[in-house]
Amino acid sequence: MAIGLFRRSAVKILRVNMRDASLKWEPVPLEYEQVGGRALIAKLLLKEIPPACDALGPHNKLIFTPGLLGGAMVATAGRLSVGAKSPLTGGIKEANAGGTSGDALGKLGIKAIVAEDQPKAKTFSILVIDGEKAELIPVGDLRNTGTYATSDKLQERFGADATVICIGQAGENLMTGAGISTTGERDQRSNHAARGGLGAVMGSKGLKAVVIKKAVGKAVKMHDETLFRTAAKAYAQKLINDPKLGTKGSQHLYGTASIVGAVNEMGSLPTRNFSDGKFPQETELRGEKLRELVLAREGKVGTRCMPGCVIACRNLYADETGKPIVGTVQYETIALVGSNLGIGNLDDVATINYMCNDFGLDTIEAGAALGVACEAGLAEFGDIKGIIGLLKQVGEGTPLGRMLGCGAATTGRVLGIRRVPVALGQAMPGYDPRSLKGNGVTYCTSPQGADHTAGNAFGARKEVNPLGIEGQKQLSLKLQIIAAMLDSTGLCLFARPPIIANPQLMIDMINGIYGWGWTLEDYDRFNRDVLRTELEFNRRAGITQKDYRIPEYMREEPLPPHNVVFDVPDSDLDTIFETL
Amino acid sequence: MAIGLFRRSAVKILRVNMRDASLKWEPVPLEYEQVGGRALIAKLLLKEIPPACDALGPHNKLIFTPGLLGGAMVATAGRLSVGAKSPLTGGIKEANAGGTSGDALGKLGIKAIVAEDQPKAKTFSILVIDGEKAELIPVGDLRNTGTYATSDKLQERFGADATVICIGQAGENLMTGAGISTTGERDQRSNHAARGGLGAVMGSKGLKAVVIKKAVGKAVKMHDETLFRTAAKAYAQKLINDPKLGTKGSQHLYGTASIVGAVNEMGSLPTRNFSDGKFPQETELRGEKLRELVLAREGKVGTRCMPGCVIACRNLYADETGKPIVGTVQYETIALVGSNLGIGNLDDVATINYMCNDFGLDTIEAGAALGVACEAGLAEFGDIKGIIGLLKQVGEGTPLGRMLGCGAATTGRVLGIRRVPVALGQAMPGYDPRSLKGNGVTYCTSPQGADHTAGNAFGARKEVNPLGIEGQKQLSLKLQIIAAMLDSTGLCLFARPPIIANPQLMIDMINGIYGWGWTLEDYDRFNRDVLRTELEFNRRAGITQKDYRIPEYMREEPLPPHNVVFDVPDSDLDTIFETL
Repeated sequence: MAIGLFRRSAVKILRVNMRDASLKWEPVPLEYEQVGGRALIAKLLLKEIPPACDALGPHNKLIFTPGLLGGAMVATAGRLSVGAKSPLTGGIKEANAGGTSGDALGKLGIKAIVAEDQPKAKTFSILVIDGEKAELIPVGDLRNTGTYATSDKLQERFGADATVICIGQAGENLMTGAGISTTGERDQRSNHAARGGLGAVMGSKGLKAVVIKKAVGKAVKMHDETLFRTAAKAYAQKLINDPKLGTKGSQHLYGTASIVGAVNEMGSLPTRNFSDGKFPQETELRGEKLRELVLAREGKVGTRCMPGCVIACRNLYADETGKPIVGTVQYETIALVGSNLGIGNLDDVATINYMCNDFGLDTIEAGAALGVACEAGLAEFGDIKGIIGLLKQVGEGTPLGRMLGCGAATTGRVLGIRRVPVALGQAMPGYDPRSLKGNGVTYCTSPQGADHTAGNAFGARKEVNPLGIEGQKQLSLKLQIIAAMLDSTGLCLFARPPIIANPQLMIDMINGIYGWGWTLEDYDRFNRDVLRTELEFNRRAGITQKDYRIPEYMREEPLPPHNVVFDVPDSDLDTIFETL
Repeated sequence: MAIGLFRRSAVKILRVNMRDASLKWEPVPLEYEQVGGRALIAKLLLKEIPPACDALGPHNKLIFTPGLLGGAMVATAGRLSVGAKSPLTGGIKEANAGGTSGDALGKLGIKAIVAEDQPKAKTFSILVIDGEKAELIPVGDLRNTGTYATSDKLQERFGADATVICIGQAGENLMTGAGISTTGERDQRSNHAARGGLGAVMGSKGLKAVVIKKAVGKAVKMHDETLFRTAAKAYAQKLINDPKLGTKGSQHLYGTASIVGAVNEMGSLPTRNFSDGKFPQETELRGEKLRELVLAREGKVGTRCMPGCVIACRNLYADETGKPIVGTVQYETIALVGSNLGIGNLDDVATINYMCNDFGLDTIEAGAALGVACEAGLAEFGDIKGIIGLLKQVGEGTPLGRMLGCGAATTGRVLGIRRVPVALGQAMPGYDPRSLKGNGVTYCTSPQGADHTAGNAFGARKEVNPLGIEGQKQLSLKLQIIAAMLDSTGLCLFARPPIIANPQLMIDMINGIYGWGWTLEDYDRFNRDVLRTELEFNRRAGITQKDYRIPEYMREEPLPPHNVVFDVPDSDLDTIFETL
């Protein structure tokens, strides 16, 4: 695998010790050279932290890392991976987000920022990176400030083109549903590495924000620029030509919300705390409706979250007066805080979305927690006032707010509710596993817990019958390997089709930059190794098959309208990785 | 082991199906014949429920069973064991209590009551047992009623000498810190099978109470009455002659509170959320002080919780006007809701104790949860008004109250506190494991989680240095085997010394009743089998060594005044059962 090794000596890891506030630029150790993004997170955590450690204690490490293609201006490949042991699942966690941070770090030759240990007292700092200079500065008046105001104030101070990665009240207060926000180009104020409570880890490190000043005139050094450019261009062209992804494609026109109708049609749209798979008002939540409203109100559609993206699936949702509420309203949020809460109105979805983003709270986890709270009677399904009244307490830090901010599993335990849609302690995204069983298999076998990006079978619903059990195990494994690849290179999930059809393009891009001479076999092994490493981390953390399981009620309570339960046998789940 | 098998055909198991409200008297299956109490619970749960099931779902079973000596009027041997999969630890659970229920069931020839499944809607019933008649009746106006009023009203209806086993608001609302209360003789209104959230399991079954009408004129049939009587008499005499246990002994005079001074002296008294091992006001909490106050106020000391007990360690604590507050104030409660909350006043301890008892809440779990809440700033340590203000919300069922009622681990998660004194999710009792390391080993290896009755090394502090690591593993194993024996025969923990010194007495009592011809080897195997079965249950539930561990902070934060951490190596913990 290491033939033709080309070490980019300019590339460094930035170690930040949060106890003594010391910083160190470290040459990239050989063993971390050929990994990035999720793969680097897996390798580093397995090597450097005790897997059974307290996720909110000093031994956990928080990693920010672009994928292998980060900074090279490959279309859709600028995502930032954030990783740590998850305080939500107890296992390894990688969550990634668009925005400008992956690109900025890649251009600056920063392979990773690793935040270690934690302050003795509960103090907060901000890490500022300006080229080769890095320093920790006091948090000042940004304590308990939402992510929007935090980003705005830091961009005022460090430049409107600086990238700000930060947490809100949820992360500062160690809520296990807290995510991490990162800014994007100009009006793209909020992208989220949302899942697994990584915002709480950032809070436990006393790190309120990371500011990366724009890398002017910097570029990734190439081993073979021609090889790289040829492949990158061909890949971008394939994205543009893809009927779904190009400028006439549904993803560009309607964003991720384009699938609302199809998921509802399948009977898999989470509705009123996962008690139904169809939502009567689903047409009000569709991508088509979203586009219509946004255009009529002079909001924006078809914008990019990352530099160089040719899909541009993003929107900026505006209220009736044309005032922007939130960007970008996405499918998972619509499902979890819309239909799952009985809310059939995009204005209300956008309002909840904004609040979650501002508190720095995962909308999936928040929506699932609120669904459980509605089932417990704290608010009525569909009662937007009641639901907002609950949610705003997250920002206030009341015990009720903290409970919700800790996610669906904690909310279910406190309120005595059994019907809690989680796997490995993490809330399920917008596909009920009973009627999209491939996703169910991913939820309860992925080392990442229930996750829509860890191996999403929705796109394969015509290949494998989503209601059947046949072939789900094989499908999920295939998708999990692909997801590991995407998350390790910095690519967006939408980039999947061209890369699956032409894996040599990815290999050429990587070899073009790094000169590693990877073959198709190396590449396949690389992707599988990510999962292997993560599974080993979780095993050492004490996680067993029993911890991964789909909740009991989903195996016994039929989901309307198909009246199906999750019935993939445990024997399939327990053997899914045998061929890894 | 089955030589000379004498099957008591009159003995039955009562199966109660809570879904369809059907009842069935079942002959005792051969495999359950030679087990009682904790041993029966272990065997039945391993055989009859899926270990990975939802502890609050329909597949869990709740078992009430006397020990093997139940009903035979052996001194201190009338304890009732309650068992189920624990919603708190996720593992197997047995908790036992004094009172008259163990004796009543034994006399009636009821080896166990097994509550199965759960109602479809959230309805509650009461099980009434009158000799061979058993029926479920509607809960009527007892919904959300505290355990005291519930017991009183049911005794008014079914006779003052009827035994009432019931739950309060905590159990009804599925709080994982809920216990089960049982009445005793006359003024003994409240004994608790407190630990592991068994009250929540009872709540999940929709079972508010079990009423057992007094078994008039009934007695346990004996295989060899002379053998039994000789041994039982010799055993009672040894209890009476024991300098600690007899009528001049500290246990009789001061109850379990007699050890406050000694635990403080060791530096192991939980103080302000386990942040210190000595409490400045400890003399105000001692058993001597308790006795002095109670006698001056015309409360009671030296009363029994079980028929036939010769130790009589119980008290009835009265306020300054002589009005009874609560019976009985015990050591673990004093430590957890006294020094652990910075409260140096027995009146306040008794008030909290009463509230917990009435809500049907484990005082250990509640004290630990409140300690965590104080650390989070919801009340000040020592501020009795603030603490009561929090606690009363358990009865009101507010989200904050439910959080506290779910115990220390949930409270710590919601409030973002790392310093949470639990093992296997269950709060530690009144001995900091850093300065009584034998208890630490028990906390983090016992299949029961952190528990003061699962293998308590306090009594062996002169044999094995509590601050050293040498010999702790061996000591804990020995004590865990003995605890399994006590909990399976119905004996009180206080009965330990004479039985350890004279195991043949126990064998003679068992053989006298049952005619099994047990040898010392059978008896030893029986006791070890209890632990083996429980460990196997937990293994199948997905619990690993990592789940059992002492919290990370206790390995790193030195505990004053000895400034010691818990440093028994993992290798000792992982191998403790190798010689089981």
